[in-house]
Amino acid sequence: MAVVTLLTDFGEKDGYPGIMQGVIYSIAPECRVVDLSHTVHPQGIFEGSLALLRALPYFPPGSVHVGVVDPGVGTERRPIAARLGEQFFVGPDNGLVTSILEHTERSGGQVAFVHLDRPEFWLPSVSKSFHGRDIFAPVGAHLANGVPLKDIGSHIEQVNRLYIPLPTPLDKGWSGEVIHVDHFGNVATNIRSNHLLAFSAFHIKLKDHTIDRFFNSYGDAEEGELIAIIDSSGYLSLAVVNGSAADMMDTQSGDTIEVINQHG
Amino acid sequence: MAVVTLLTDFGEKDGYPGIMQGVIYSIAPECRVVDLSHTVHPQGIFEGSLALLRALPYFPPGSVHVGVVDPGVGTERRPIAARLGEQFFVGPDNGLVTSILEHTERSGGQVAFVHLDRPEFWLPSVSKSFHGRDIFAPVGAHLANGVPLKDIGSHIEQVNRLYIPLPTPLDKGWSGEVIHVDHFGNVATNIRSNHLLAFSAFHIKLKDHTIDRFFNSYGDAEEGELIAIIDSSGYLSLAVVNGSAADMMDTQSGDTIEVINQHG
Amino acid sequence: MAVVTLLTDFGEKDGYPGIMQGVIYSIAPECRVVDLSHTVHPQGIFEGSLALLRALPYFPPGSVHVGVVDPGVGTERRPIAARLGEQFFVGPDNGLVTSILEHTERSGGQVAFVHLDRPEFWLPSVSKSFHGRDIFAPVGAHLANGVPLKDIGSHIEQVNRLYIPLPTPLDKGWSGEVIHVDHFGNVATNIRSNHLLAFSAFHIKLKDHTIDRFFNSYGDAEEGELIAIIDSSGYLSLAVVNGSAADMMDTQSGDTIEVINQHG
Repeated sequence: MAVVTLLTDFGEKDGYPGIMQGVIYSIAPECRVVDLSHTVHPQGIFEGSLALLRALPYFPPGSVHVGVVDPGVGTERRPIAARLGEQFFVGPDNGLVTSILEHTERSGGQVAFVHLDRPEFWLPSVSKSFHGRDIFAPVGAHLANGVPLKDIGSHIEQVNRLYIPLPTPLDKGWSGEVIHVDHFGNVATNIRSNHLLAFSAFHIKLKDHTIDRFFNSYGDAEEGELIAIIDSSGYLSLAVVNGSAADMMDTQSGDTIEVINQHG
Repeated sequence: MAVVTLLTDFGEKDGYPGIMQGVIYSIAPECRVVDLSHTVHPQGIFEGSLALLRALPYFPPGSVHVGVVDPGVGTERRPIAARLGEQFFVGPDNGLVTSILEHTERSGGQVAFVHLDRPEFWLPSVSKSFHGRDIFAPVGAHLANGVPLKDIGSHIEQVNRLYIPLPTPLDKGWSGEVIHVDHFGNVATNIRSNHLLAFSAFHIKLKDHTIDRFFNSYGDAEEGELIAIIDSSGYLSLAVVNGSAADMMDTQSGDTIEVINQHG
Repeated sequence: MAVVTLLTDFGEKDGYPGIMQGVIYSIAPECRVVDLSHTVHPQGIFEGSLALLRALPYFPPGSVHVGVVDPGVGTERRPIAARLGEQFFVGPDNGLVTSILEHTERSGGQVAFVHLDRPEFWLPSVSKSFHGRDIFAPVGAHLANGVPLKDIGSHIEQVNRLYIPLPTPLDKGWSGEVIHVDHFGNVATNIRSNHLLAFSAFHIKLKDHTIDRFFNSYGDAEEGELIAIIDSSGYLSLAVVNGSAADMMDTQSGDTIEVINQHG
């Protein structure tokens, strides 16, 4: 009994994710399908990559993550599958796998890649515009059934990786950027808790705002107060208790943030 | 094979509900997870409580309802689990359980509560801000696996309850309030069918509108007509055939409604 | 292990689709429930019918499709179930089944209909306004359990069918209409690939736009370019690479489209 997750930018109104589930259950009737998100911003490869990273550590060994954020569908970009430690990724070779691949490499997990070039594991007829249904869903189902990665495509040495922005050191701190705004308006940055280990006190600059209130949890702050915390994935984040930090600061992904050590 | 339901205010775009499913399937691979709603208004404890009440009667014995509408996450509010007749609730002790708890008590079902104070049933590492993933999902999965309630936490006598507004008697009727506006714009009130048993005819006042058309079903009224009906959960509701009563009356949760008996 | 799909206009916030899942798992605990869509436009019978058509070919034999787009709930419209080749439909007799029924007939599949008139297969108490929960979900679950169609209701000869607009021939082409705008803004028409077989070159008129760029896939066109393609369901569609054709042309379902053969 394997879990197959779906992450796409297909939206929820047209039934495309459900169609992928139909394909998967046709091939792997005993698996469980989990919808991670179908409202990734259209063509939001980096956003999708981060969503996979948040999810990966919480899925059981053998899980297969089918990711379809695929602006190049129908072109020559390769369809791929990857082993990531004890889990699998299936999707386009456009960098969507980057975050979970680098996470696996940092953790010392085994990685391997194949080019999906064996149509016997696809649907009999492959459209030009819906590889999620015709290639990625059936390949994910076969992996869930235990077909070995090496049988499902030809070995390749490398895959395309996204450039993922890392914080750069400043004289007395770090310059980073906003990488995600969630449903609650919490603002995640690419600065991680380990960047701040040597800092006894710091302030944060983002657009016109300076934040020097750092808390261990939302519950320690007052309602409506703009604070900094380490979020549940380990990233420095800005939040407003029972409010939206993104709205208060009018910020979005890509905005620059600076963390300045006050006793550096 | 137990059913585990999820009700949260996490939204659907960031993948948080799917992550909870990953945790649940890691512990209880044979259960079925059902998404009740992830678009409860942020911090909408009363709204979430009513959604659980609509759902509870339709789930099989042994079902576990994990509810995470939790503005106090990270503070000293207790995590709890409850037996409610033959089903279970898992979530914060902030009143979210109130409606299904009182429903169970009215029905004569057995109730029992525990404080979730045993980390051996949680994820190994617990964040400050995502107890849905780190505490409530794993506890729900263990209950689905058949771990007895008394083993999963320490017995407590009482839990926090929401104040749920009840209709108050008027000279010739009832004063109540709007408690829910659904996707179609149907407006549910806290006046139940049994409040109206003694009334042979009545009219209803809500904002500037007076409604005296009471129907057994939408199908008996004309398109565009504002009518009163008893909804599928037993509440007096206002509806417009193929339209939105909430838009027509510009009403929302909390607005006052009066029902006046015309032959009292 | 059968698959039961759900297609409704209930929206996702109130928990109604999850309640239907509770009913289904109470009766058929081993089935898999797949959400096709719950954001069909309210009362969008034609839209729902097309969504079922996109999905049907991709589900395994024995699948049961429960469709609840039902403006007539509570009136005398009949509840029905249908055999469609090796799959089943359950829902109101209001034309929602039309597209998948005609697809099955064109494919030579066996069809049969019953009137759902046997309350022993429903919930014990049937509301006036939520037949999805009280009639259609339990009937779907019984079909998933293998109850024969002929036992679940009385045989009927015919069901109501939607008028589905077909393209009409022009002097040198076809006049059709827009039938669907998807999440990406891709615009599907009712002109199918086989209508164009005899055309060596053509141009398309839709509102103020003339399109003469026809491609095999999005990937062959330039970013921002308005093109025509055959979509993954076989329909002539208008698309913009990494953009919204619907926004660019300000078009919606029902708009007229003409395809003119340039060498006719």
